[in-house]
This record gives sequence, structure tokens and C-alpha cells, in this order.
Amino acid sequence: MQESGKRRGEKAGLPPGTLIYVGERPVEPTILSFELYDEKSLQEKIIKSVQELPKISERDAVLWIQITGLANIDTLQELGERFQLHSLVLEDILATDQRPKLENYGKYEYVVLKALEFNSLYDFNHEQISFILGTNYVISIQERQSLLFHTIREWIQNNSGNIRTRGTHYLFYSLFDVVVDRYFAFLENFGESLEDIEREVITEPTQETLQKIYQLKHIMIQARKAVWPLREVTSHLEREEPPTVREQTGHFLRDIYDHVVRILDTIETYRDTLSGMLDIYLSSTSFRMNEVMKVLTIIATVFIPLTLLVGIYGMNFPNMPEYTFPWSYPLLLVVMLVIIIGLLAYFRKKRWI
Amino acid sequence: MQESGKRRGEKAGLPPGTLIYVGERPVEPTILSFELYDEKSLQEKIIKSVQELPKISERDAVLWIQITGLANIDTLQELGERFQLHSLVLEDILATDQRPKLENYGKYEYVVLKALEFNSLYDFNHEQISFILGTNYVISIQERQSLLFHTIREWIQNNSGNIRTRGTHYLFYSLFDVVVDRYFAFLENFGESLEDIEREVITEPTQETLQKIYQLKHIMIQARKAVWPLREVTSHLEREEPPTVREQTGHFLRDIYDHVVRILDTIETYRDTLSGMLDIYLSSTSFRMNEVMKVLTIIATVFIPLTLLVGIYGMNFPNMPEYTFPWSYPLLLVVMLVIIIGLLAYFRKKRWI
Amino acid sequence: MQESGKRRGEKAGLPPGTLIYVGERPVEPTILSFELYDEKSLQEKIIKSVQELPKISERDAVLWIQITGLANIDTLQELGERFQLHSLVLEDILATDQRPKLENYGKYEYVVLKALEFNSLYDFNHEQISFILGTNYVISIQERQSLLFHTIREWIQNNSGNIRTRGTHYLFYSLFDVVVDRYFAFLENFGESLEDIEREVITEPTQETLQKIYQLKHIMIQARKAVWPLREVTSHLEREEPPTVREQTGHFLRDIYDHVVRILDTIETYRDTLSGMLDIYLSSTSFRMNEVMKVLTIIATVFIPLTLLVGIYGMNFPNMPEYTFPWSYPLLLVVMLVIIIGLLAYFRKKRWI
Amino acid sequence: MQESGKRRGEKAGLPPGTLIYVGERPVEPTILSFELYDEKSLQEKIIKSVQELPKISERDAVLWIQITGLANIDTLQELGERFQLHSLVLEDILATDQRPKLENYGKYEYVVLKALEFNSLYDFNHEQISFILGTNYVISIQERQSLLFHTIREWIQNNSGNIRTRGTHYLFYSLFDVVVDRYFAFLENFGESLEDIEREVITEPTQETLQKIYQLKHIMIQARKAVWPLREVTSHLEREEPPTVREQTGHFLRDIYDHVVRILDTIETYRDTLSGMLDIYLSSTSFRMNEVMKVLTIIATVFIPLTLLVGIYGMNFPNMPEYTFPWSYPLLLVVMLVIIIGLLAYFRKKRWI
Amino acid sequence: MQESGKRRGEKAGLPPGTLIYVGERPVEPTILSFELYDEKSLQEKIIKSVQELPKISERDAVLWIQITGLANIDTLQELGERFQLHSLVLEDILATDQRPKLENYGKYEYVVLKALEFNSLYDFNHEQISFILGTNYVISIQERQSLLFHTIREWIQNNSGNIRTRGTHYLFYSLFDVVVDRYFAFLENFGESLEDIEREVITEPTQETLQKIYQLKHIMIQARKAVWPLREVTSHLEREEPPTVREQTGHFLRDIYDHVVRILDTIETYRDTLSGMLDIYLSSTSFRMNEVMKVLTIIATVFIPLTLLVGIYGMNFPNMPEYTFPWSYPLLLVVMLVIIIGLLAYFRKKRWI
Repeated sequence: MQESGKRRGEKAGLPPGTLIYVGERPVEPTILSFELYDEKSLQEKIIKSVQELPKISERDAVLWIQITGLANIDTLQELGERFQLHSLVLEDILATDQRPKLENYGKYEYVVLKALEFNSLYDFNHEQISFILGTNYVISIQERQSLLFHTIREWIQNNSGNIRTRGTHYLFYSLFDVVVDRYFAFLENFGESLEDIEREVITEPTQETLQKIYQLKHIMIQARKAVWPLREVTSHLEREEPPTVREQTGHFLRDIYDHVVRILDTIETYRDTLSGMLDIYLSSTSFRMNEVMKVLTIIATVFIPLTLLVGIYGMNFPNMPEYTFPWSYPLLLVVMLVIIIGLLAYFRKKRWI
Repeated sequence: MQESGKRRGEKAGLPPGTLIYVGERPVEPTILSFELYDEKSLQEKIIKSVQELPKISERDAVLWIQITGLANIDTLQELGERFQLHSLVLEDILATDQRPKLENYGKYEYVVLKALEFNSLYDFNHEQISFILGTNYVISIQERQSLLFHTIREWIQNNSGNIRTRGTHYLFYSLFDVVVDRYFAFLENFGESLEDIEREVITEPTQETLQKIYQLKHIMIQARKAVWPLREVTSHLEREEPPTVREQTGHFLRDIYDHVVRILDTIETYRDTLSGMLDIYLSSTSFRMNEVMKVLTIIATVFIPLTLLVGIYGMNFPNMPEYTFPWSYPLLLVVMLVIIIGLLAYFRKKRWI
Repeated sequence: MQESGKRRGEKAGLPPGTLIYVGERPVEPTILSFELYDEKSLQEKIIKSVQELPKISERDAVLWIQITGLANIDTLQELGERFQLHSLVLEDILATDQRPKLENYGKYEYVVLKALEFNSLYDFNHEQISFILGTNYVISIQERQSLLFHTIREWIQNNSGNIRTRGTHYLFYSLFDVVVDRYFAFLENFGESLEDIEREVITEPTQETLQKIYQLKHIMIQARKAVWPLREVTSHLEREEPPTVREQTGHFLRDIYDHVVRILDTIETYRDTLSGMLDIYLSSTSFRMNEVMKVLTIIATVFIPLTLLVGIYGMNFPNMPEYTFPWSYPLLLVVMLVIIIGLLAYFRKKRWI
Repeated sequence: MQESGKRRGEKAGLPPGTLIYVGERPVEPTILSFELYDEKSLQEKIIKSVQELPKISERDAVLWIQITGLANIDTLQELGERFQLHSLVLEDILATDQRPKLENYGKYEYVVLKALEFNSLYDFNHEQISFILGTNYVISIQERQSLLFHTIREWIQNNSGNIRTRGTHYLFYSLFDVVVDRYFAFLENFGESLEDIEREVITEPTQETLQKIYQLKHIMIQARKAVWPLREVTSHLEREEPPTVREQTGHFLRDIYDHVVRILDTIETYRDTLSGMLDIYLSSTSFRMNEVMKVLTIIATVFIPLTLLVGIYGMNFPNMPEYTFPWSYPLLLVVMLVIIIGLLAYFRKKRWI
Repeated sequence: MQESGKRRGEKAGLPPGTLIYVGERPVEPTILSFELYDEKSLQEKIIKSVQELPKISERDAVLWIQITGLANIDTLQELGERFQLHSLVLEDILATDQRPKLENYGKYEYVVLKALEFNSLYDFNHEQISFILGTNYVISIQERQSLLFHTIREWIQNNSGNIRTRGTHYLFYSLFDVVVDRYFAFLENFGESLEDIEREVITEPTQETLQKIYQLKHIMIQARKAVWPLREVTSHLEREEPPTVREQTGHFLRDIYDHVVRILDTIETYRDTLSGMLDIYLSSTSFRMNEVMKVLTIIATVFIPLTLLVGIYGMNFPNMPEYTFPWSYPLLLVVMLVIIIGLLAYFRKKRWI
């Protein structure tokens, strides 16, 4: 946990309903923009204040309000008043340690997601994204400035896939789908790091490799926590989807559900792989120790007897008969050679060398 | 388990309904106080006996009776008679080894919670807190004197968040929330100890480090046992909440539930981290052993052959030709140097040094 | 498994309905006694035969028949005829390897429990206790003579807690509660043994310590098997409890259920502790090995080079210049001292000593 | 897997309905026999062909057809035609790798069981037993000739337990019970092998011990697979049992269910024991290594310094003062003795010896 | 993951409904063929375009369209228009990383399966197979050219098992069954590899063996993922099966379900075996280390004392009495022999050799 940003514990003691930013990272400045579109017209604008938002009386127009950065709490408060949002919703938007969830507040639904990003082993980020889904508006609130929903804006501009005729639910599903699709990219980047470390484990594992494996494990636990609740969120959405909406959105939601399940599957596979790598790491450590022990044993077994032998002929007893034979020195050298060869042959037979 | 305080086993054999304090710590003296408030008026008092409690006939006034310390069993008994509490409730209040639970006795609900405190690795406490939630009164019973509900008393004095207009349920939820919010502080303190020991595991683990890890693991198991049943308690409260109450308390209860789930999540993460630390500890032990073995093997491999060599020229055979060559001694020293350099190069190639 | 007592396998092949004692321990002689009581009167007697049992026509009197020891199969058979017990019930009473369970036979309920006793690590016993709960009688059947239900008999004699006015269910619950309360004493004794071995693991673990840990683990598995089904038994009893009975017995049953859950909790905690002890044991074994290895390596590293050095000056080359310098011997001793001090300083720096 | 007997994979590609024997063992010759009985009469016969089977028109007579060995597929085919059995039932009877199951085909029920036999560690067998339970007939089909149902035949001959008056269900339950009771014998034999190996693990474990433990583990997995589905089979039977049958068979089925649960319990206990044995095995291996290391370290620590000492006095420096003292040799021997005693005392203090 | 073939991550950002091939392997060219049959007639043809497909108006004729290879996206698009398939179905057919599943689109059902092939440890493939099951047609789409459904085509040609009279569901079940039956062959091949490696683990395990075990484990995880969802798919099919279909197909579906369960069973057993092999591998590594240590210790223990002894008599003290005894040299040799024999006897007693 970093120093910047407030921590949850500091909030304890404040009466419920007090708005305050809770997060690990420093807060970013708030930018507010909207798109108002129907099949024929499209209006886009970056605005300074909630007052500038257009009225939404026409039945078929969709209003998408996009907020990035959580620094300006007043903007959120005004938005809350304008759309009659519960104070707990505003609190949850500001507290970026939420779990993904869906809450039905009657007139609107509140959905929290986590977007994950993995660049390298030590560059792993997650961003909280909140949605308010009303009858003819969608509000998306992001912790940070990013190009995440850029493609959706382009689809709206080009009316790709008839997005402009398909209503608020279709817009919301598209935004949801963008976040879910990011997990695939996340998992591919992760998978590449995994392969790098897998190679490291097999070729030359160090104490550091172990810490890398635990780092990856930790990230997978985070990812699982971000994705797991989405199963429930999507099936909840499907249960509550009005039949008229289903006609417009087709089997889109079921497709998202399918993706979520597949992402969870991949996460489980990666966790299994990581456990396997851990075992290989530990086993290879003990394997190398074994090898070291063998070298030591071979050296000791070969040289210690020879050392005894030469020690014997270094003794100073006056009447050792070997000293009088002329060929005893070369003979001894031959005997030593025979011992060396014999022992090495024995070790080869036992598959030690 | 300490000596002071009665133990559960000593209670076996007494007929049901016998009131007796059961706990690990020495019992604290009982202090009795109350607040009686409605929107306009507020009455606060520390009292000596249950007889001094005010009558509660007015419909909208809320009576909050606060008891700290369980030494005075008579006070509890009188309270039980006054509010017609079941004898099993009184028994459970006195037995401080309860699990968190909610029991519906018709006219009132009985709730037990555990407040956790973590100051350092060897200063971990838990306190049992009981609530009786009646139609127009709330009784809170704490094992020990503390400032835990101090903030609530201040809110009542200042009528923060309109607490004085919102009835008994809102008061009870606020007290409940205070206990739950304490877990966040608890987990932050715990997290810091965890990081300290994580550093210790990586830099210089000792046998003691292992016992610290198990100490932390043990605390996490305790914490999980204290928090886990709260999921059921809160969802039970939500199911039974009368619709009129819900209007007053808003989505407060759902928010508490959300916090409980998040706390459980963090506990799970910490447990995972502890398991990882255990693995790193064990692996680093075997890693260091490996290193020690290598040093031993290198020493033996370099010096034992040289010792053989000098042993050969310590032999007393009269006709060893080497003794007659004038350069054999310096030549031997050169050969020994070559052997040393060769072996070290070989070890470097094998990445042993 | 001991030799005495019949084993389950030997029963295979007999037609169903054949009564035979199955158990690990030798069977004990049967003693039959009863209490017949209502609010005003009490009759107690040890009797020889089922014929001596009093008639039970009065509505409010409760008959408690107590049987200890299973040697006399005829007594059981007569009892079965008198109270129209199913032959399978009689078979189960005699087969002391039952799991705790409740079976409803319409006119009566059959309940099996296990009483546990833990005196020391090698003195762990369990006894099967069967109950027949009829409309106005309770039959308790114990495997062995014991003072287990002594307190209940005293309560009846003194009418403690108005036991004599509260009917058969209250009697049955009291007996049940006595068995459950014994588990607390069991767990406290167990906890003390656990602490002893915990100390042993940390100070001086031997191969025997490991076996003790497994012995404790085994006992916890047994205890869990004895207690776990009681959750179902108690909730089953609660479901089937007639409302009139509930008035008499209050929340007694819920209290028993609570105790059972708490006992299971403690068992889980003990199992966790045992797993932790196992890990500490294994880790401390490898830690000590590490220490031994270090001593070996230090000795080898210090002395082997010195041995080489003195070996060099034991060589017999005629023209070694060192032999002619007068100070070479003391100089060599100084060099050797420098080497020793240098290596020891190096090891201290590496934290090996 | 052995060569003899067809394997499942070879069946792939044949159209469904093709009858073929699938099994690991060579098929045994088919023997066909029947018993036709009611309360008063009994007819028994070994027959050559299905045509010889008696007509079954009388209401109360029970026909039990017993088939052992699966070599004669024609017999099965004729039986299938006579009793209108589905071709999938015939296929399943012939494929001896079925899981235990119950299938309801309207006019009859098809039940598959596995009989287990454990003689020694390397003599573990399982046999598939199929039952067809019709309104007034029971067909039992065994893979191999055995005396398994011999006792039932004797009961019928002697009308033990009034078996001849109790109808087809009672016969079927008795056959079922015989198979279940065999598991008790199986587990007792197994338990004895377990104890043998437990002793081996503690006294002198070898590499082979480990393989034996895994062999036992493997058998327990097989046993669990054979017994686990019986829970479902028996509760399924109980659900579908007609009330008239229940009167005849009493609580027989519930008793069988009880046995199945107890067998599963024992299997779990054995699996726990095996896991414990594995841990003890692994720990004792490292314990012995520890012991070996200590011996090595003691030897090295005692002798290497002494070797240095005697090496010093083997040097050829001309002016070493010690050579001139007359008592230096015996003094040196004393010093060496002191070193040896000192080191041994040190090791004893450190509890190495 | 290979380079060829598109990856899932690259699809992110395209609007839903865009058809694109997603897979790890290079795409294969599309071949389109059909069979149109009823009881009396049969028409087979390989065609170039969807336009060539026959009209299907007759009630009883079955049209089976077979597509292999996914290169030609236009063909799929035309097929989708002709049979009114949802665009998500077409997307899923092209994305070969689907999990097995069944989706009901009202007029047709969409089923995805995985066919597994295991030739050797490093030659493991899986192929995605999609089915569209309409009222009077079945479409099968395979990723690759293969002879998988060759037998079904032969059955249709020969009308084996009256396949031509039994309608679309029977055809679909037959195709489904072919895929499921392939798993038996897959598991048998796998089982053989498993046995090879089991032998390797016991006789001479290397570091490579460990990686092989993990390779097999990985394949089993893949297999489990491919087979597990089939349980749900088949039970879903059974629930929705119209009664008229059931008459035609008999208990075929239940039989397939049975096979799926048995395959899952075998997979679990193999996974257990692999875990056991891992343990044996690790244990045998430490066992061999133990053996190496013993050799080293024996050598050191035998020779180091002897080396000390001969060192003593290599000292140059002038007045060592042993030098003057004539038999001291042979005596010393005898003493050394006695020491060697004594130590070896001691080791044999301790079961080290």
C-alpha cells in the first residue's frame, strides 16, 4: 500500500453518507463528457458542469455520460442529485476497493467492474469502473483517464452494428464487453511472462525465481477476485432483462457470460501451471544438491584411500621391507592408478557419473 | 488458556439456567449507563441499578442501555427480569466463548459479535459484544471498558446523519457498523506486521520467523471465525427487516454486508500470502543448505587431490627419481597451482561459484 | 483392533435379525435400573429382569430405564418385546461401531451417541450410548458402567430446575446435554496434551514426537466423526419437536445445537494447530541438519588447507629452500594462524557462526 | 491392463446394440441355474438353456435365476428375449468396467454392483455383479464362479428368517446385503495389511515401503469408487419402494444404507492413515539422513584437527624445537587425547551423541 | 501458443458479429459435403457451394451436412443465411477455443465438443467439433480433415442398426457417441505412456522425468476440461428430448451419459496416479541422496582414522619408542585391518551396508 490516497481504515468513524475518496493511488482530475444519440442524430461534448447536460425527454435517444477521474467530488454530488442516486452508490464509486457487483436500486442499476492491465511482472494495475444503467441513460465512471471506451465512441460515430438503434442496454453491454475483452489481452501478456519464468525455472532457477513465481501467483489471485463475481453479475443481468430488451440485444449477454467463464478457466489453468512450476523449482533445487553431493562423494571416495596409502609409505619405521625393493615406488603408482580406474568404473556402473 | 477466568469445562454438571461467567480473562467491573432520545430531547446517565432506568412508554423515543464489564451478575439478572430475557440469553452473554450469531426470541433479537484488536504480533485481543434489539430499546453489552461506541454517542449528541429521528434499528445498525469498521483497522495493523515478517523471510529467516508466521496464521484463523458468521447474521437481519424500517435505514444493511464480504476477502488474501511466505521460508532454508554444501564440496575437491600429491613426495622410498631432479619442487608447486586454477574454472563454468 | 470382542466381519453370513454383540472391547455385565417419577413422587430401583418394570399408565409420570453393559442379550430381547422395538434397533444397540444417528420408528425415536474420554495420549476411549425416546419413557443404554448420568439422577432426586415437571423430552435433552458437555472436558484435556507436545516440538523434537502428533491427529479425526453427525441429529430433533414440548423445554435444544457447533469449531482449530506443528517439526528437522552441515563445512574449510600446507613441508625433496631459512617454521605457524583467523572472520561475516 | 480380455477402446466403431464381452480378465464359462420357491415348495436346477426355465404364472412364487460366467453370449441374448430386456442392459452386463448404478426400465430395475476381495497386497480383485429385479423374478449375473450367494441358497432351503414368504424384493435385498457385508471382510483384511506396513514404516522403511503405501492407496481409491455410488443406489431404491414391499422387508434397506455409510467412513479413515504413513515415511527418511550427517560430522570434526597436528610434526624443517624435547611425543599423544575427549563432551552437550 | 492462427486478444475491439477465425493452428481449407437419406434412398455428394444443397421438404428424409476446415468464411456465412443461424453461433464455430456447451436457439440447438488425440507425450491434439441440430437436418463442422465420422457414413450406406429409419436425433447421437468413444482410445494411449513413465520413475528417474510427469498432468487437465461439461450437455439433451424422439433412440442418450461419467472417473484415477508418481519421484530423489551420503560417511569414517594413524608414524620425533620395535610395522598393519573390519561390522549392524 502506498502513502498517497486515503485508506479505508481512516474512513472508520465518519457517519454514513459522508463522501470521501478511498484508494491506493493519487486521485486524478475529473473530466466530464457526454454523447446523446438516436438513429439519426449524434451530439458529443466535453462539459464543465452537470448543469450543461442536455434534457432527456425524447423516448428513443440514449444519453451516455462519461466521467474519468474522481478528484471533483462536487461533480459527483450534483450528478447524484440530478439522477436521484442513493448516497451509498456515490460512496461506492469513490471507494475504489469495491468488489465487482450489481445492485438494483429500482429506477437504475449500479454495476462495478475492475479493468486489469499487465505490462510486466512489476507493472500490474487495476482500475475500478462503475456504471449506472437507467431507462434512457448510461453513466460510466472511470478512476483514470484512458482510451478504454474509445472504440465504443467510434462505433457510435459510425453507427457500427447499428449501435445507435439498439438502446441503452446494448450500449451498456458493449461497454461491459470492452472491459471483459481486456481480460483476454491481460491474460495473453500474463501468459508470456509465465513462459519466460517457466524457461527460467528449468534452465537456471535462483532464489529470485521463486519470488517471481509468487508475484505471478499473487496477480492471478487478484485477477480471479476481479473476474469471479462477473459470473453472478451477468446471470443476474440476464434474469432481470426485460423481453423487449432481449430482442434488441440478441444473445449478446449470453456471449459475455461465455467469455467470463472462459477467462476463469484460463485463470485456473495458469494457477495450476504456477503450482507445477513451484514444484519443479523446489525439486530442481534438491536435484542440484544431489549432484553436488555426488561430486563430493566421488572426490572423497577416490582420494582418501590413496592419501592413506601414501601416508603409509611416509612412515619412519626403519625396517619396512617395501623400502628395499627397487620397483616398489613405480608399483605403488600403478596400484594407485588401478584403484582410481576401478572406483570410477564402479561409479559409472552405479550411474553416479 | 490462562489461569484467571472460569473455563467452559468447569460449567459441565450444573443444571441449565445457572448464570456463571465463562472466559479466559479476569472479569471486569460492571458499569451501567443509558441514553434516552427522540428528535428533540436527549437524556444521558450513568446509573447504579436497573431500577433507575426510565420508563419507555412514548412511541418514538429510543432507549439505548450500555453495559460494560460482566462482574456484576445480579445487574444482568435484574435486566433480564425487566426486559423478560430468556435465561439462555443471559447465559450466553456471560459465556465469552460464543460464536457470532443472531437468535430471534420473538419480542427481541439477540446478536453476538466479536471485536478484534491487533497491536503487535503478541498483542492480539478479542472482545465479545452482545446486543439485545427490542422494539424501542437497544441493549449493548461489552466484556470490557472501551471507547468503541464513543463516536455513536457523539453522533447522538450532535444528531449527525439525523440518527435521532431514525429509530432503534438505525441505532443498532450504527453500533454493528462500528464493530465491522474496526476490522478494517485491525486488518491494516495486521497487514503491516505481515510486511515486516515478509521482509524478514526474504532477508534473514531464522527458526523464530517460522513461529511468527504460524502466530499470524493462527490470528487469521481467529479473525475468520469472528467474521465468517456475520454474513449469515446480516443476511438474516435483511430478510427479517420490516419494510417500514427499511425506509428509515435505507440500504445501510446491504452496505454492512458488503463490508463483511470485503473483510473476508482480505482475510483470504492474507492467508494466501502467509502460505506463500511459509513456502519461501522452507525453500530458502534448503537453498542456504545448498550453498553450504557447495562451499564444502569446492574445498574438498580442490584440496584433497593436492594433499595426495604432497603425500606422495613425503614417502620414504629411497630411489624415487623425482628427488634427484633439481627443479622438481618448484615444478610441483606450479602443477598444484594449475590444478587449483583448473578446478576453479571448472566450477565457475558449472555456475557453482 | 484387539482380540477380545467380536468383529463386524464375523457377523457376515448370519441372517438379518440375529442379535450378537459386535465391539472392540470385552463386553461388560448388564445392570438394569429405573426411575419412575412425577412432580410429587419418585421411585428408584435396580432390578434383575424386565418383568419387574412398573406399568406406565398414568399420564404425567416419566419412566427412565437405564441399562449399562451389553452382556445379557436376553434382557435386551425382553425389553424389545415389552416396548415393541424393531429388531434392527436391538442389533444396532449391540453393534458398538455405529455412527451417531437418529431414527424415527413412529412410536419411538432411536438415537445413538458417542461419549469420548481422553486421559492421556495413549488412554483415549469412546463409548456408545443409545437412547429410546417414547411418549412417556426414556431408555438409555450404555456400553460400560460409569457415573456419566449420575448428575441427572441427583437432579431428579432434588427436582433441580423442575426436571420432574418437564416430561420425557426434557429428561432426554438433559441426558443428551450431559454427553455433549463431556466433549468440553474432553477437549480441555486434549488441549493440555497438545500444549505439551507443542513445547516438545519447539525445544527438542525426536522421531517419537512425530508419532505423538499423528496420534493426536487420529484422535481428532475420531472426535470429529463422533460430533459431526450431532448437528444433523439436533436439527432433526428440533424439526420434529411438538409445540407442546417446546413450551416445556424452552430453547434448550437450540442451546445444545450451539454447543455442538462450538465443539466442532474447536476441533477444527486443534486440527489446524496439529498441521502447523507438523510443519514446524519437519522444518526444524531440516533446520538442525543445516546447522550440522555448517559445522562440518567450517571444520573442513579451516583444516583441509592447513593439512595441505604441512604436507608440503613433509616432502622429501632435497633442495627445498624453505628448509634452510632459520625462521621458516615459526613463520609457517604464523601463516597458519592468519589463515584460521581469516576464515573464521569470513564465516562470521556470512553469518554461519 | 492384461492382454487377455477385450478392451473398451476396441469396441469403438461398432454400432450400438452389438453384444461383446469387455473386461480385463479372461471370460469364464457360463453356468445357468434357478430356484423357484414359495412358502411351501422349492425347485432347484442347473440348466443348459433358457428354454428349460419354468413358466412363472403363480402370483406368490419367486424365481431366482443365477448366471455365473459371461462366455456364452447366446444365453444372455435368449434371456434378454425371454424377459424383454433392453439391449443396453445386455451390453452393460457384458462390459465389466461399469460403475455401480441403478437404472429403472419400467418393468424391471437393473442394478450393477462390485464385489471386492483383498487377500494380500498384490492379490486384490473386483468382480462385477448385475441384478435384474422384476415383479416376480430376480436375475443375478456374476462375472466368475464363486460361493458368494451360497448362504442365501441355504437360507432358502431352510426358509431362514421366513425368506420364502417375503417376495422378490426381500430376496434382492438379501443378495445386495451379502455383497455389502463382503466389504466389511474386505476392509478387515485390508486393515491387517495396513498395520503390517505401519510397523514397517516405523521400524525399517525402504524404498519398497513407499510403493506398498501407494499400492494400498490405489486399492482404497478403487474401493471408494465401488462403494460411493451405493449410497445413491440404496436411497433410490428406498424412494421407489412400494408401501406393500416395505411392510414385508421392514427397515432392511435403511440398514443396508447404514452399512454403506459406515464402510465409506472406514475407507476415509484408512485413507487418512495412509496419508499419515506417507508423511512419517518421508520424515523418517530425512531423519535418518540427519543421523548419517551427524556421524560424518563427528568423525570429521574429531580426526581432521588431529591429522593436522601429526602433519605438523611430520615436516622436515631442521630446526623445530619440539624435536629436541624428550617428552614431546608422549605430550603430543596426551594433547590429542584431550582434544578427542573435549570434542566428544561438546557433542554430547549439543545432544548429537 | 504458436504464431500461426489468430489469437483471441486480437479480436478485442471488433464490433460483435464480425466473423473471424480464432485458433492456435493454421486454418485448413473448407470441404463441404452432404448426405440426404431416408429408409429407401440415399444421396451423397461433395459440393462447392451452399447453393448446391438439396431442398428438404419431405418429412422423413434426414439431411446431414458435413463441413471440414474453417478457411472459407463465406461458405459459413451462406450456410448461416440458408438455415437462419444466429451470428454468435457462426462466431463460436470459428473461434476454436470454445468450451464444450449446448445452446438452444429455438429452431435449432448448437452443440460444441472437443475431440482429443494422444499419440505420444509430445503429440497431443484437440479439435473443435460443432453441431447444429435442426428438425430435419444435422450440420457437423470440424476444424480439420479427418476420418472421424467415416464409420457413421458407412452405417448410413449399409443402414446398420436401422440408422436410416431413426431420424435426425439418432444421427446426432451417433455422431456425439463417436466423439465420446474416441476418449476411450485417447485414455488407453495415455495410460500406456503413463505406465512407461511409472517404470522410469521407479528405475532411474532424472530431472526430465519430472517434466514428463507435469506434461501428462497438463494433458489430463485439458482432457478434464473437454469432458467435464459433457455431463451437463447430455443431461440437458435428455431433459429436452421430445417423447417421440425417445421412442426412436431408446436409452441411447443415457448410455452416452454413462460413458462420459466413466471417462471422468478414469481421468480422476490417472490424476491420482500422477500425484502418486510425483511423490515417489521426489522421495526417490531424497532416497538416493541418502544412499550417496552413506557411502561418503562410510569412506570418511573408515579412512580418516587410519590416515591419522599413519600420520603419527610419519612424525620426525627422534625418540619414538615404536621405531625401535622390529614388529611394529606389521603390527600396525594388523591394527589397521582390525579397525576396518570393526567399523564395517558396525555399519552392517546399523544396516547402512
